[in-house]
Amino acid sequence: MSITFDSGIYGALLSDAELAGLLSDEQELRAMLEVEAALARAQGKLGLIPAGAAARIDSVAHQLSITPETLAGSTLKSGVPITGLVAELKRALGGEAAEFVHWGATSQDIVDTALVLRLKSAADLLSSRLAGLAALLAEQAAAHRRTVMAARTRFQQAVPTSYGLKLAGWLVPLIRHHRRLNEMRGRLLIVQFGGAGGTLAALGGQGVAVTEALAAELELAAPSLPWHTQRDTIVEFAGWLSLVSASLGKIGRDVLLLAQSEVGEVRPTAAGGSSTMPQKANPVLAEILPALAQANAHALGALHAAMMQEQERGGTGWTVEWMTLPQMMVATAAALNHARALVAGLTVDAPRMRANLEASHGLVLAEAAVFALAAHMPRSKAEALVEAACKAVIEEGGHLCDALAKRTQAPVDFARLRDPGAYLGVSDEFIDQVLADFKAEFRDAGPARV
Amino acid sequence: MSITFDSGIYGALLSDAELAGLLSDEQELRAMLEVEAALARAQGKLGLIPAGAAARIDSVAHQLSITPETLAGSTLKSGVPITGLVAELKRALGGEAAEFVHWGATSQDIVDTALVLRLKSAADLLSSRLAGLAALLAEQAAAHRRTVMAARTRFQQAVPTSYGLKLAGWLVPLIRHHRRLNEMRGRLLIVQFGGAGGTLAALGGQGVAVTEALAAELELAAPSLPWHTQRDTIVEFAGWLSLVSASLGKIGRDVLLLAQSEVGEVRPTAAGGSSTMPQKANPVLAEILPALAQANAHALGALHAAMMQEQERGGTGWTVEWMTLPQMMVATAAALNHARALVAGLTVDAPRMRANLEASHGLVLAEAAVFALAAHMPRSKAEALVEAACKAVIEEGGHLCDALAKRTQAPVDFARLRDPGAYLGVSDEFIDQVLADFKAEFRDAGPARV
Amino acid sequence: MSITFDSGIYGALLSDAELAGLLSDEQELRAMLEVEAALARAQGKLGLIPAGAAARIDSVAHQLSITPETLAGSTLKSGVPITGLVAELKRALGGEAAEFVHWGATSQDIVDTALVLRLKSAADLLSSRLAGLAALLAEQAAAHRRTVMAARTRFQQAVPTSYGLKLAGWLVPLIRHHRRLNEMRGRLLIVQFGGAGGTLAALGGQGVAVTEALAAELELAAPSLPWHTQRDTIVEFAGWLSLVSASLGKIGRDVLLLAQSEVGEVRPTAAGGSSTMPQKANPVLAEILPALAQANAHALGALHAAMMQEQERGGTGWTVEWMTLPQMMVATAAALNHARALVAGLTVDAPRMRANLEASHGLVLAEAAVFALAAHMPRSKAEALVEAACKAVIEEGGHLCDALAKRTQAPVDFARLRDPGAYLGVSDEFIDQVLADFKAEFRDAGPARV
Amino acid sequence: MSITFDSGIYGALLSDAELAGLLSDEQELRAMLEVEAALARAQGKLGLIPAGAAARIDSVAHQLSITPETLAGSTLKSGVPITGLVAELKRALGGEAAEFVHWGATSQDIVDTALVLRLKSAADLLSSRLAGLAALLAEQAAAHRRTVMAARTRFQQAVPTSYGLKLAGWLVPLIRHHRRLNEMRGRLLIVQFGGAGGTLAALGGQGVAVTEALAAELELAAPSLPWHTQRDTIVEFAGWLSLVSASLGKIGRDVLLLAQSEVGEVRPTAAGGSSTMPQKANPVLAEILPALAQANAHALGALHAAMMQEQERGGTGWTVEWMTLPQMMVATAAALNHARALVAGLTVDAPRMRANLEASHGLVLAEAAVFALAAHMPRSKAEALVEAACKAVIEEGGHLCDALAKRTQAPVDFARLRDPGAYLGVSDEFIDQVLADFKAEFRDAGPARV
Repeated sequence: MSITFDSGIYGALLSDAELAGLLSDEQELRAMLEVEAALARAQGKLGLIPAGAAARIDSVAHQLSITPETLAGSTLKSGVPITGLVAELKRALGGEAAEFVHWGATSQDIVDTALVLRLKSAADLLSSRLAGLAALLAEQAAAHRRTVMAARTRFQQAVPTSYGLKLAGWLVPLIRHHRRLNEMRGRLLIVQFGGAGGTLAALGGQGVAVTEALAAELELAAPSLPWHTQRDTIVEFAGWLSLVSASLGKIGRDVLLLAQSEVGEVRPTAAGGSSTMPQKANPVLAEILPALAQANAHALGALHAAMMQEQERGGTGWTVEWMTLPQMMVATAAALNHARALVAGLTVDAPRMRANLEASHGLVLAEAAVFALAAHMPRSKAEALVEAACKAVIEEGGHLCDALAKRTQAPVDFARLRDPGAYLGVSDEFIDQVLADFKAEFRDAGPARV
Repeated sequence: MSITFDSGIYGALLSDAELAGLLSDEQELRAMLEVEAALARAQGKLGLIPAGAAARIDSVAHQLSITPETLAGSTLKSGVPITGLVAELKRALGGEAAEFVHWGATSQDIVDTALVLRLKSAADLLSSRLAGLAALLAEQAAAHRRTVMAARTRFQQAVPTSYGLKLAGWLVPLIRHHRRLNEMRGRLLIVQFGGAGGTLAALGGQGVAVTEALAAELELAAPSLPWHTQRDTIVEFAGWLSLVSASLGKIGRDVLLLAQSEVGEVRPTAAGGSSTMPQKANPVLAEILPALAQANAHALGALHAAMMQEQERGGTGWTVEWMTLPQMMVATAAALNHARALVAGLTVDAPRMRANLEASHGLVLAEAAVFALAAHMPRSKAEALVEAACKAVIEEGGHLCDALAKRTQAPVDFARLRDPGAYLGVSDEFIDQVLADFKAEFRDAGPARV
Repeated sequence: MSITFDSGIYGALLSDAELAGLLSDEQELRAMLEVEAALARAQGKLGLIPAGAAARIDSVAHQLSITPETLAGSTLKSGVPITGLVAELKRALGGEAAEFVHWGATSQDIVDTALVLRLKSAADLLSSRLAGLAALLAEQAAAHRRTVMAARTRFQQAVPTSYGLKLAGWLVPLIRHHRRLNEMRGRLLIVQFGGAGGTLAALGGQGVAVTEALAAELELAAPSLPWHTQRDTIVEFAGWLSLVSASLGKIGRDVLLLAQSEVGEVRPTAAGGSSTMPQKANPVLAEILPALAQANAHALGALHAAMMQEQERGGTGWTVEWMTLPQMMVATAAALNHARALVAGLTVDAPRMRANLEASHGLVLAEAAVFALAAHMPRSKAEALVEAACKAVIEEGGHLCDALAKRTQAPVDFARLRDPGAYLGVSDEFIDQVLADFKAEFRDAGPARV
Repeated sequence: MSITFDSGIYGALLSDAELAGLLSDEQELRAMLEVEAALARAQGKLGLIPAGAAARIDSVAHQLSITPETLAGSTLKSGVPITGLVAELKRALGGEAAEFVHWGATSQDIVDTALVLRLKSAADLLSSRLAGLAALLAEQAAAHRRTVMAARTRFQQAVPTSYGLKLAGWLVPLIRHHRRLNEMRGRLLIVQFGGAGGTLAALGGQGVAVTEALAAELELAAPSLPWHTQRDTIVEFAGWLSLVSASLGKIGRDVLLLAQSEVGEVRPTAAGGSSTMPQKANPVLAEILPALAQANAHALGALHAAMMQEQERGGTGWTVEWMTLPQMMVATAAALNHARALVAGLTVDAPRMRANLEASHGLVLAEAAVFALAAHMPRSKAEALVEAACKAVIEEGGHLCDALAKRTQAPVDFARLRDPGAYLGVSDEFIDQVLADFKAEFRDAGPARV
């Protein structure tokens, strides 16, 4: 048990190199320096600071190379890395330009905006992975429309369904998640700029103008107000991460149940072996997905509680964000990759699905039988007949259809009733509706019903 | 310490009679019977069940009166109240109509749709309270534009700000919350209808038609697929509840800090007395708001973890929703009322705000001094001067402006510098932007930048 | 979806009448009045207040009947019910005795001590239920020593085990929980008494003496210091509640897996029926247990976060306790009853257990085969042989023992190897160790190794 | 915002090099190899494997050097690092000894026991830091017995207290935490050894003997049963971590409130500066403590929920432990160091404490006045007098004692009443009791009342 996000041993399992890369110390330093540079450019253009100083800050900030450890001491002392970063930047600049670095800004302006820059990249990465997984599920849902299996409710076989419908069920929340992310983008991808106390007083009357210019430089939006202690946009995004990972966790949990020894309807390829049991094929990725989701669910609670940040700026809740949000992004990115690998690698055992249905001796068709009989008699009588037949099957064996045939003269088409594939209801229409929503959301980007 | 949502002692403090009323046993029974009635009407119109039976089910369901305790036994046995409810309804119907009750539905169809019906009312109630609180904050933000006070960052006086800007800061997330709720309404207010296993097989090919007709009867939308184990829409709404209550919790926490004996800038009216200290005026509502928010934050984590419901229907996660979501709605409703009462009842002590600023001996103007001096010298030199002057003030007393005047010949307008109200930056523009967003969101219902 | 702890519909499923009774408004009023009475008695004995006044307070407090709603208004206003309660008590007393009620106490002294009085009863009730469940598991563990079934790891059949060993595994944490509760009793069952600010200054120098006398009156211990804002003892108890319910949730989850249609090794009696599927027997109690545990787990997080209560007394965290702890106690009490009913009611299908083992075609004996062969060859060679044989069985059918016999001349006793019941290792010794610990903990109350 | 536990920038603030060192990949590999070595030694001594092989495994395991990345691939594939580790160990051994590595063990046996080995070191480290902090608080509590300040309840000045009593209040839960850790050591520090399915069947009848020998080799205890899916001991320890960090978070929160600009009773040395405000001295460590505690509180909820691990071994909940517990240990270790640095570095401003008391114009003495007057009149009359006087002081200024003197002839010693230091009740006795408990717990290791 190492500190898993940082572990060479566990990293491939529980971390995600690509998203963790966006959140590395190096990328954070790069982003913070870019914000300082953009601020100088914006202020230079508005004449707030000399154009030459702005150009030099822009240039030096982009070239400056600082090791993370350089900032460790000042970060411990001041609780934020900006005091140290600005000192390093001033040192590298020297001369007049150094006077104009970080003009009118507060540390949190830089840290938060640098975060948002990376949230933008992270949102793009996650959205792209989401789309990839959705496309895979859509393709498989279409392909498995007629792969008949048991629907299971409360851990019991209920009625027949199709594997395609199950896949469509896994897909539908992903469509909504894509929609949600787009809805929140405009709220999330905003600059933070408020100065010492949220009034931008150091900039005289030009605070709004600088905010807008800074936003333009960074291709972000400008908020109506600094959001130093109004963290709902950050936490809304964290909620999205947790919704996504929970939807993937449900896929994992379903796969675990389907892959059990006694069920065996899907088999993960590249399943994990045991250190002592030669026969084992462990569904590792399926087990990891709910673990990542559970970690996110609890982290989300921490972030919501941390929203209550004090007055104009507070350190406690903000620090909780630092400890929590990066891990949630990494976990969600890992979950998206794992889910895709898991679903893509599943071997679907359609004969076993059929066999499991058959093994119920027709009990899984009890509802079908009730409604077939109810065409010829009151439903209450049909139910009583089917209950008696079920009881007989459980106690004496045989097939439900035979038990029923012995008990009624009703002209039921028992051959058809006996076929689970004939009792799929509107599963095709449901799949079609989901596929249409998928196309509308991911292809046309227009409105869809989900 | 009673079970607080149900307590005569604590109810007024921690519950909300109006929203709890929507979630009473009686209202739940009413809603479930309305769903059964609407299903019969929809199926009658489509010819799936006899029109006469449909009419009678509709009529009897609306008249039927069941005590909650009638269902306790069957709920314990089957884990849902529908088995018992349908039995009662059949008993009341008798005859042929009883045969067509609950046709093709599963228990969860009724429970979930009945929940959504009440979510609709709850969302309306919460939205209306949100609007009321937002209007109050907007009005006060405008009124207190020039009520100068200290901005506080990390529990220290930072720079001057205005109470109006603080109020605008409290308002801005509420505007976003209103937007968010509207964005999710279409996803949330949908019928649940999937039958035993999500295929609606009992209805032959008419599953989609019945779903749409049922949705029309109930003035809800129809989903692309049953969502028995895809709970993201419910949990998204829970996330919204927690976002709202956290934003209100931040108001409470700010008020607590402002109302401290040593700060005294606001005073809650009708503050609570002590059982032993005659002088005490406790800010009770301000303390309750973060408590409600913390409870919601943690409940939200439970709901996210509970999203991973098994296969086509699972009881565990669903039950966690039952234990959690109603309390979150009640807590949020209570918080909205308490926040409004708290803000409306605050006595704002502008002279004390001024006095607290003055008590810093001008230290709260240190940033202002740096930028005033920086008009006449390099900022680094200005900073050094101000730091030295701050040090002198801390050690020897006096006012920062005087300490500076002794140290520099720079033609700074010390009289203006000495006035905290002259260092409010663009607080007015920020307030105006927020008020414009408020109007756009709540009046015109058009797009706003927040 | 009602507010479940208070619901006539859901109460039997999710609440617990007996423990909820301890936490009713009525019992809370009773307990608070008893604390006021005991305080008067203690102070009367010490001569701090007149003996006559003490006697009259004691008498009137025990007779006084207050409806919960009487206190609603003052509780909303002051955030605690004591202001109103003391006013009612004074009114009932009249005359001199009224002057000496609540002498030197603060509201929180009464509320917390009244809570502890009921925690004592609650702890006894929970401990007794825990013992009952443990005894049932112990009895069944002994009875099912030789009921052979598959051990399942990561959702796959692993090796043979016994149902008795599984039961012993469920039992062992309960033994530790019983131990833990006894360890914490002395910390938990203490009076709260600190007066207005934790110094008991109103009592002159007699604060410690009154604390001890009050503790003696109530048969509680006296703490070294008031614990108004040191809540670790309360939260430690909440942690215990959550540990207990999680251990029970694990039982529920295991039962769910064993009771699946395709596994069928245990069947809950009195399982829940479906509103549309005649054949269903839903394992309702098994699904409820993890739901109760999940609710507790998240509530516990809220309580830990709420420990950071401000200065000498704070209202926010304390209120979070009120919203959380009673529900945790009720959920744990319900879980203990449900777990006992679940386990007691399980029909164990030993032939099905056997059949499920057989259905693996001997793959569940792969480890056994390796070690049987390793007596005659290097383990690596044995592993290679078994892996090849497993592969053959998976692809071509047949039994692992036959596939092995074809591949080796090693003098393995294949008849014995073929018997899963011969590969139970030290399961008997493990069961014996647990039963000994059970007896030591619950009978002799002496030390045990767990 | 980097992944903070792994960040060069944030590590000194939010991580802990010493405890993180115990949890490094390198230490994990070392511990896992030590468990394999100890297993071989134990089995060699019992004659289960050849003595020569045991000796060679012991020797090679201690010399083997594996880079963490070597195991990344197999960890991703099998979900645990042991398959890869054992393969590396076998490769290094070659020959006959390789046949006897990991004899009869399962991956989880090694991972869990290797964790426990490091938990032992971690518990020692944390216990030692706890003792150090407790000693500091004890020393300061004694030193500040007569440093008079205002007790604050619900954010309002209540009555006088002493800073020494506040320190004793911070100390008292640490004494209990030390006790708790010792109580749980015997449960926590146990080997995990159950083999493939918890029966140790691969070892024939020697499973218990090997377990005990392995425990002896590693200086751990032997459990009554393998605890692969009974995780209460791990989670109990996590609960302890969270209790500790919450108690420290309360210290941080109190310091934040005392260090506010308007209160100023304590000043952190080495406080953090601002990037734009020269006068700021931010209480960084005080803000970090509650952040660490909040993160732990929520992680604890995840661990409790993760206790419900499936059947004989499950991967999901176990993986949640990996993602959560190491961070909790690191956060707690960091919090202990930060708390000590914070408390040790506080400058206590006794005159400011006095001045803040004076600033209440005697209102903080209202309770004292009531009880002083109540010696000469009924308390109700005294209360009415004091309330009237309080009202006068609030509206007209002046001191409560003067306002009272004007209103009564009662022979109250107003000079004494005017001195807050004369109204400290039994604060000294309380401090003495805590110091005695401290000594008993940390020096004599005997029983104490806390």
